[in-house]
Amino acid sequence: MNDRLTRLQERIEQPLLVTNPVNVVYLVGFHSSNCALLVERDRVRLFTDFRYLQAARAVEQAETVQTKRNVIGELAETLTGRIGFEAAALTYANYEMLKKGTVEPVATYREVEQLRAVKDEGELEALRRACAITDRVFERLTEVPFVGRTERDVAWDLAQLFHDEGGDALAFESIVGSGPTGSRPHARAGDRKIGTGELVVIDAGTTIDGYASDYTRTFATGPLDGEAKEVYQTVLLAQQTALDGIRAGLSGVDADALARRVIDDSPFAGAMGHGLGHGLGLDVHEDPRLSTESSDVLEPGNVVTVEPGIYLDGKFGVRIEDDVVVTKDGIENLTGFRKDLIEVA
Amino acid sequence: MNDRLTRLQERIEQPLLVTNPVNVVYLVGFHSSNCALLVERDRVRLFTDFRYLQAARAVEQAETVQTKRNVIGELAETLTGRIGFEAAALTYANYEMLKKGTVEPVATYREVEQLRAVKDEGELEALRRACAITDRVFERLTEVPFVGRTERDVAWDLAQLFHDEGGDALAFESIVGSGPTGSRPHARAGDRKIGTGELVVIDAGTTIDGYASDYTRTFATGPLDGEAKEVYQTVLLAQQTALDGIRAGLSGVDADALARRVIDDSPFAGAMGHGLGHGLGLDVHEDPRLSTESSDVLEPGNVVTVEPGIYLDGKFGVRIEDDVVVTKDGIENLTGFRKDLIEVA
Repeated sequence: MNDRLTRLQERIEQPLLVTNPVNVVYLVGFHSSNCALLVERDRVRLFTDFRYLQAARAVEQAETVQTKRNVIGELAETLTGRIGFEAAALTYANYEMLKKGTVEPVATYREVEQLRAVKDEGELEALRRACAITDRVFERLTEVPFVGRTERDVAWDLAQLFHDEGGDALAFESIVGSGPTGSRPHARAGDRKIGTGELVVIDAGTTIDGYASDYTRTFATGPLDGEAKEVYQTVLLAQQTALDGIRAGLSGVDADALARRVIDDSPFAGAMGHGLGHGLGLDVHEDPRLSTESSDVLEPGNVVTVEPGIYLDGKFGVRIEDDVVVTKDGIENLTGFRKDLIEVA
Repeated sequence: MNDRLTRLQERIEQPLLVTNPVNVVYLVGFHSSNCALLVERDRVRLFTDFRYLQAARAVEQAETVQTKRNVIGELAETLTGRIGFEAAALTYANYEMLKKGTVEPVATYREVEQLRAVKDEGELEALRRACAITDRVFERLTEVPFVGRTERDVAWDLAQLFHDEGGDALAFESIVGSGPTGSRPHARAGDRKIGTGELVVIDAGTTIDGYASDYTRTFATGPLDGEAKEVYQTVLLAQQTALDGIRAGLSGVDADALARRVIDDSPFAGAMGHGLGHGLGLDVHEDPRLSTESSDVLEPGNVVTVEPGIYLDGKFGVRIEDDVVVTKDGIENLTGFRKDLIEVA
């Protein structure tokens, strides 16, 4: 048991209908693609259909109410009065359905997400375990040569290694971007055969109790040319500068700027096409955001990725990503795996 | 190239902003978690951020426009006039953002989903391949005893077999529900050790080119008691009755009733706690729906699951699921794997 529901109950102005399934997992530990949690000051009800009913009944902090498959449709006709809903989770169609019923829906923003952004000790423990597994997986991954195999083959190696080391599931579809594929930050692993003297971007993670790790390392398959080496060292310096500077109180924009300045002062100015990082937890991308568009300020207990990158269109990419806990004075880096340029021929 | 965009352009009354990422995949083959496709009668534009830009530029049917990370926020300020949006995909927060800008948003429903519900030959080919792989995986799965292993171990076997047989990825997290776990239709594979003389519900599938298979079989681990055998035969009869009766022109409600009647006329009346099936394609659950709540009528080219089940609370469950193409006169069953009661001790 934890105090998450209590903390939510203390902050809400009216009953809150939680429909983001990950927020439901966070609040009461219940997994379902079709449910809603109605949190009132003195009462919590969990609505779901037959398929999830037994699991719902095991949730001690909430009364279970069985609904038909169209949960929102049924709530629209049975609930009454002002009820907050999660504007970033509820679809417009479901909003319309609520509004046409007996509910007076009130848009709310980030009520649960703000709680989730600051991790408690149990969450940090899960994240530490996920990262320790990921350290071992990356270590073992580099023991087998990449050259001559496809990106997809290496991605499957990752799946097997994560399973073997005790990860619950992949946190996301692993990215294996070799040579030019690596210049697309979110390329999927494909049928391209990895060649010699290339850079290979590997972005992967696992979950433990639902909490995700998210690492990136970029490896060399044999000796690189001068430009590739310079890009690598620039990204490494940008990342180290960010890791040295991040602490509670810094804004997401300022955190991003720590790394971006290093890259923009290099011959590769403008080549960091994405933000520095994002919160990490039950979702692989959650609050806070470290980017030029962020409106967040870092707090102790935030867990974020720190992942600058340089992408040279059609040539190659380099990204280096650690997972860190924000503390009052700095960070606790959960990522142990080395980040000097390794050759995995 | 296919005619999907053309067919969509012919049916829309105003420009349509497609934000459901699966609909974008369907229309132009572009995969991204952060994009929007604006379909006008004579013009198609694909909006996405830096991370997906190179892949977007490879899409021949659309002009690529780079946006900041907040795609909808940027479109709210740059697009003008009446623009349809997908009410079942856009969040209320994004709707509000559009409305506050220079756009006059118009809610639309199932414009792309209705196209997707009727598969073309290329889609059927992908589904046939996914099913052929799943046949082989279920065949091989039954060659290794279940007893003494955990549900999670069997789920990992499935992952390995699907990979080995050439599946692109798991279509969803495999369900392995042994004994009482099987009475929860959507239970996750857990740490329960599978015992002798139990029923084990296995629900799994793979994707080929994004198209999902979705099978369920229920196996016995040794001799069963009379009730368990009777439940199995009842579900089998319900499924066969539905397979015999499904054809184009039948409503989703009537299709569901074919199987439900068999169960409700048995000693297990009321124990089929979910709908008979759902459409299958790029999503594992899509239109049309076969259930008591459905408003669909079956058409030739629909691909649906047929999966009656009986769940005896806390004791066990039985579900048998095939994937079928709806034809004018009946069905083409894509599922070849046997469905008599098999003992996998």
